This record gives sequence, structure tokens and C-alpha cells, in this order.
Amino acid sequence: MVTDPQTACFEAGIKFGTLYHQFAGTPVSPDSARSLERAMAEAIENQPYCESVSVRILDDALEAELAESTADYTELTGRFMEVEMEIDYEGVRVRTEMEMEDGYPLMKLVSVE
Amino acid sequence: MVTDPQTACFEAGIKFGTLYHQFAGTPVSPDSARSLERAMAEAIENQPYCESVSVRILDDALEAELAESTADYTELTGRFMEVEMEIDYEGVRVRTEMEMEDGYPLMKLVSVE
Amino acid sequence: MVTDPQTACFEAGIKFGTLYHQFAGTPVSPDSARSLERAMAEAIENQPYCESVSVRILDDALEAELAESTADYTELTGRFMEVEMEIDYEGVRVRTEMEMEDGYPLMKLVSVE
Amino acid sequence: MVTDPQTACFEAGIKFGTLYHQFAGTPVSPDSARSLERAMAEAIENQPYCESVSVRILDDALEAELAESTADYTELTGRFMEVEMEIDYEGVRVRTEMEMEDGYPLMKLVSVE
Repeated sequence: MVTDPQTACFEAGIKFGTLYHQFAGTPVSPDSARSLERAMAEAIENQPYCESVSVRILDDALEAELAESTADYTELTGRFMEVEMEIDYEGVRVRTEMEMEDGYPLMKLVSVE
Repeated sequence: MVTDPQTACFEAGIKFGTLYHQFAGTPVSPDSARSLERAMAEAIENQPYCESVSVRILDDALEAELAESTADYTELTGRFMEVEMEIDYEGVRVRTEMEMEDGYPLMKLVSVE
Repeated sequence: MVTDPQTACFEAGIKFGTLYHQFAGTPVSPDSARSLERAMAEAIENQPYCESVSVRILDDALEAELAESTADYTELTGRFMEVEMEIDYEGVRVRTEMEMEDGYPLMKLVSVE
Repeated sequence: MVTDPQTACFEAGIKFGTLYHQFAGTPVSPDSARSLERAMAEAIENQPYCESVSVRILDDALEAELAESTADYTELTGRFMEVEMEIDYEGVRVRTEMEMEDGYPLMKLVSVE
């Protein structure tokens, strides 16, 4: 048997895997970060049960990376972004977020209500 | 509060979103289907808590698609594959699968134990 | 030996392959099409020698697809977009475009000057 | 006007952009590197005019990365692979390769004949 809260959490995970692996590798710079944040959020909000997505690309982290390089853009990866999402499946609300922890982008469940 | 079964389901969802959106769009033909199946499975098995992944690319569906076209390959998408996965998080075993339903690739939880 | 016009064409091809395979598979609907167009163009414009990118997601084609389905979004693929790009490599200007031809998204060189 | 050698170079570029942005971000470890190499090569060989593709995932570079981390896999990116390709368009043979240069994965034309 599978419960609604379990399915809600499964759906939340799908959205995170989608967001990360659809967009990781995208060429990004401080100048293009705003349009990418918005497109990522709106793309994932299309998916079922997805109430809201917030993507913040970290300009400071991007600029620190670019300061050490000869290029003026890099590839999007977990250390350049923070993500929050809310999923609503059959009245179960799941809040999730992704942030760096010990050098890794950690996707986690914040609450299931 | 978040329970272990909920986290196990969240982890299962992450793997499905990753698998689908990392590999959707890959050029594929019956000749290259076997190597792609294997690479997809082994790639996702790297992820935490992922016990096993089985990917089957559907040669019949590929061949039907190619029979209607002038090309000899197409882009991987949900209707050309079936996927099964087992996740083990803190002793909770989650079985999931993806197959076509009403023309859509449906990712679903089979059991949480 | 490799000439500057040849390298300019190689660079143009890289941008097209990048654009297509980075973003193919993205969940898209008429509501999210504008932000995705802009993010795709700005992402690729980050790449070296890329003067300008124009992406047009075809609302008519999206709506026709969605009219036949029970979902309210689909996955981005070649038949839902038209792309134009200009590359400038060492003074050689390359114009390229992608549009559907015989049911396939065809990427082609328009001019090399 | 566009010449056959220019089109051959454009086609070569498309393949490189495809290979890189389709597979960048894939979870990879020394254990899964062989299947990924093969799938990448066979996927791109499906594309028109593509004679051969060779992908080498650099176990040494992977292992050096993993030695500094708590994870046992990482995401595929340019510094973990070397690629060679041959394109044949209307009798024009283009050889290309990608390797690291100054910390960046550089895709380049080796010869056009």
C-alpha cells in the first residue's frame, strides 16, 4: 500500500530530479541568471501537483567562480543555486529545498503536512 | 516532521526525475538501445540509496516510429522505455516503475515496505 | 589546415547542438514559453563567438499538441521551436537557423560571409 | 553561399554540442564509466554524417575528484573526458577532438580534408 503523503513526497522528488538534470550544464553568467531562474521555475511549475517553485542563482558564487577563470560564463551546477518547492498532492502539502551542504547540493524534505 | 518512508519516496522520485530528464532527447536507434539502457541504469545506480535500476528500451516502439520516418534514429522519450527501480532508505524499500498510460509516461510508486 | 570560415561554422554547430540538447525535454506550455525562449537565447549567447540568438516557441504547435492530450504541458522538442543564430569568428559572420522540414528539425547554415 | 567543407564543419559542431550537453551532469563513477563511454559514442554515431565517435572517461581525473569528497560518484563534465569524432559530409572528412586546455574543455577542429 502507498499513502497519499508518500506519493506527495515521490512527486516532490520527481520535480527536483527534473529541475536539476534538465538544467545542469546550462551556460550561465550573472547577466543571464535572471532569465534562467525564471524559466526553470515556470518550467517545473507546469508539472502535476507543483504549486510553486523558487530558484535563486547565486550571483556571488558565480562571480567567485568567474574571478578565477578566463571565461565570462560557466555551467550551471548545484553550488550556484538554491531552490524551494511546494507540492500539493490530494491535500498533502510538501515543502522541499535544495542547498549546499558539505560541498554537495542536498535536496531535502522540509515538511509534509 | 518527515518520516523515513516519506524520505524514501522522495529519494525514489529524485532518481526518476534524474533518469528521465538526463537522458530524454538522446539520439537512439535499435542498434544503440542496449548500450543506452545499460548506461542509464548504471548512472542512476550511482545515486544514494539506489539499490537497482532496470531500463528497457522498447525496440518495437522504436521500430514503429522509424518505419514512419525517413530517419534511422529518433530522440529518446517516455514512450520508448520502461523503467523499474528499487530504493532502500534506512531499511524502507520502495519499488517504483514507469510505463505508458493514456499516452503519457507515468512514474509511480509500486510499494513502500 | 583549418580556415577561419570552417572554424566559424564549427562554432555555429556547437551552439545549435548545445541549445537543442540542453533544453529538449523541458516541460513547456504556452504560459511558460516566453520565459523559456528568453532563457535559451541568453544562455547560448554566453558562449564564445555567439553574437545573437533568437528562439521562438510556436504557441500554435504547442496548442495543437495539447488539444489532443489530457495534459496541459508537453516536452520541448524541435517541432515546437524556430531558432536563428549569428556567430562571429575572427570577422567571419555565420547565420544559421533551425526549422522543421519533412517532420524533422533541420539545423542549417544560411550564410557564411 | 555555403561550401561542403563549411557544412561538414557545422555538422561536426552540432555533434559536439549534442554530446556535451546531452550527457553533462550524468552521475558517473569509475564503475559506471565504461557503459557511459559506450552509450555516448553509440548515441552520437546515430546522427547524420557521423562516421565514428570515441569517448574516453578519465578514471584518474574521476578518482582524484572523488578522493577529495565524501561521495562515491560525481557529475560528468568536460574535465573528466576526452572525445574524438570523425564526420563525413559529401566526401569531406572532418576530424575533431575535445580536451582540456587551461582548465576548459576545448572542442576543436583537427583537420578538414
